[in-house]
Amino acid sequence: MSRKILVLPGDGIGPEITAEAVKILNACRDAGLDITLEEGLVGGAGFEAFGEPLPAETLDKAKAADAILLGAVGGPQWDKLEDISKRPEKGLLGLRKNLNLFGNLRPALLYPQLAEASSLKPEVVSGLDIMIVRELTGGIYFGQPRGIEEREGQRVGFNTYVYSESEIERIGRVAFEMARKRNGRLCSVDKANVLEVTMLWREVMERLAADYPDVELSHMYVDNAAMQLVRAPKQFDVIVTGNMFGDILSDAAAMLTGSIGMLPSASLNESGQGMYEPCHGSAPDIAGQGLANPLATILSVAMMLRYTLNETALAERIERAVGSVLDQGLRTADIAYEGTRKVTTAEMGDAVLEAF
Amino acid sequence: MSRKILVLPGDGIGPEITAEAVKILNACRDAGLDITLEEGLVGGAGFEAFGEPLPAETLDKAKAADAILLGAVGGPQWDKLEDISKRPEKGLLGLRKNLNLFGNLRPALLYPQLAEASSLKPEVVSGLDIMIVRELTGGIYFGQPRGIEEREGQRVGFNTYVYSESEIERIGRVAFEMARKRNGRLCSVDKANVLEVTMLWREVMERLAADYPDVELSHMYVDNAAMQLVRAPKQFDVIVTGNMFGDILSDAAAMLTGSIGMLPSASLNESGQGMYEPCHGSAPDIAGQGLANPLATILSVAMMLRYTLNETALAERIERAVGSVLDQGLRTADIAYEGTRKVTTAEMGDAVLEAF
Ligand SMILES: CC(C)[C@H](C(=O)O)[C@@H](O)C(=O)O
Ligand SMILES: CC(C)[C@H](C(=O)O)[C@@H](O)C(=O)O
Repeated sequence: MSRKILVLPGDGIGPEITAEAVKILNACRDAGLDITLEEGLVGGAGFEAFGEPLPAETLDKAKAADAILLGAVGGPQWDKLEDISKRPEKGLLGLRKNLNLFGNLRPALLYPQLAEASSLKPEVVSGLDIMIVRELTGGIYFGQPRGIEEREGQRVGFNTYVYSESEIERIGRVAFEMARKRNGRLCSVDKANVLEVTMLWREVMERLAADYPDVELSHMYVDNAAMQLVRAPKQFDVIVTGNMFGDILSDAAAMLTGSIGMLPSASLNESGQGMYEPCHGSAPDIAGQGLANPLATILSVAMMLRYTLNETALAERIERAVGSVLDQGLRTADIAYEGTRKVTTAEMGDAVLEAF
Repeated sequence: MSRKILVLPGDGIGPEITAEAVKILNACRDAGLDITLEEGLVGGAGFEAFGEPLPAETLDKAKAADAILLGAVGGPQWDKLEDISKRPEKGLLGLRKNLNLFGNLRPALLYPQLAEASSLKPEVVSGLDIMIVRELTGGIYFGQPRGIEEREGQRVGFNTYVYSESEIERIGRVAFEMARKRNGRLCSVDKANVLEVTMLWREVMERLAADYPDVELSHMYVDNAAMQLVRAPKQFDVIVTGNMFGDILSDAAAMLTGSIGMLPSASLNESGQGMYEPCHGSAPDIAGQGLANPLATILSVAMMLRYTLNETALAERIERAVGSVLDQGLRTADIAYEGTRKVTTAEMGDAVLEAF
């Protein structure tokens, strides 16, 4: 049965990077993968066409798809929208919530060919390979009550950081399973010395550990985790944390590699349906100039093949192809340095295709 | 009129590092500073003596003091305390809240003599000098409602992230004033694309900017700030943010310097009363062995002289003395490397005293 892939280019560099990833998807189809591709509008693009960052039509297509490939959303022209519900980010958050994509996988992997690009000393980051598992549909991002209101003569803003045992348990199981497939070490990050919600988080993780005797569970406070990522990031294998802490730590971890243009991500629900997107943003300042790095989006296709389509062999072929173009010395502007060959977005995509 | 200083050694390495800082306070008194010193118990030490991490007697002394010098609190023997209100951290949080110490100043400064210690490349961090202004008595640390309760058949944990306009304004003014005294650039960190409470935060910062036309205000999302601190930390002058984000970012920033054992902090209320403490923790694993670095605590005394006692000349004398012992090549274990002379906690304190 043909599997449906929805491509949502989004804003900024989104269209040009997804175009390169679609080339690879087509190559996978030529190699025998039974997929059908559709396109949709989201973010600023959705707002311009339909007045909504997540048009109903896009949401319907997303629900019907097995997997979604998203470029990126956002741009300065929509930052000033008075009605916050119309901002591009709400399209992304709406997709996550409506499809129940609670399990966000964000690898921070240093490509040996790009070791130079890191702002950290080579010995601190060489061989870095961390997987951050972030809860994506709960926590303070979606907690109620929330808002801004008048209290005792002045305005007060408030949000609610909330997790139930079952929400913690299901993301915990994703993380324990992930650790089991990797090096067997899981670090759960919380602020259990201050926040009750994360005391419950820690307690549930402890309880789950009994089901995974082969995984070594540790706990770390979020402030210490931020420090340890800077000091000695290679101590980590898998990190599991909530939505807000995961947002912050996964970006810091990605930046340790110095090449955020290389990092893909997956967001999964309980039935394995997933949304795949690069870790980087929509970079409106360089959009349309052929400067963007398509590799994170191409590697997001590899994650899609691995986690939703169960096509590990094809996933590995893509990853090897990316390794090979790096070995050839091809670089988009963000990762170029002396002695390498600078290529455009499309040239990079074509090179991966060739090596595939 | 004699000013009262309360010394709270706390737990772990707290007693040995505050002992060295007290030597310097005494030297300041010998140099003509009119102060009286008192001691008190807090954290695990308070719990052991009085069954409370913040004994009433300590709180009374703290209220009566002009300034407090705190070592550090916490240790594994108290982590398992069932009653969370008895944990050492609650002593610290109780002091902050009861004395209304809302303005937390956390410098991240790279000492040229210690440039090697950073895990970042020298060109990325050399000359680093950031001041993080963290709101310390509000936000999610103290927001109500909070707790763990049964809802629809399962337990749910929740905390409230809340700020009022007046709370934001008063920390904003501290930060704008700080930027004015430094390089005139203030970056306010929030998550205004997701959290209403930080939309209000951003709005109030914007409004305040009109009163400080000489300060250049910018805004950054917290995930991006975590990335930028790793990628190019020297872009920052002063950062202002809420309690939780400040906890995370200030630790990451401190670690960029590679020598968290060097970094002091100040926590101030509206009348200039302040609590001064090193950024590092109680390090129970090395307590009592003369291995701890007393410089962060000694530099906290310098901050006390500057911000509460208005004795800038004495503050500078201490800072120069610290610079001089580093120039001499003296190092405690945490910052020692080949070619430097390893000294104990007390030897380091004595050397600073000598150079003072
Ligand atoms: C755009 C924003 C809402 C989003 C988030 O905070 O989750 C982004 O930063 C991310 O991490 O995917
Ligand atoms: C000990 C803990 C409660 C405290 C905090 O989170 O504020 C500490 O991490 C700090 O930053 O001073």
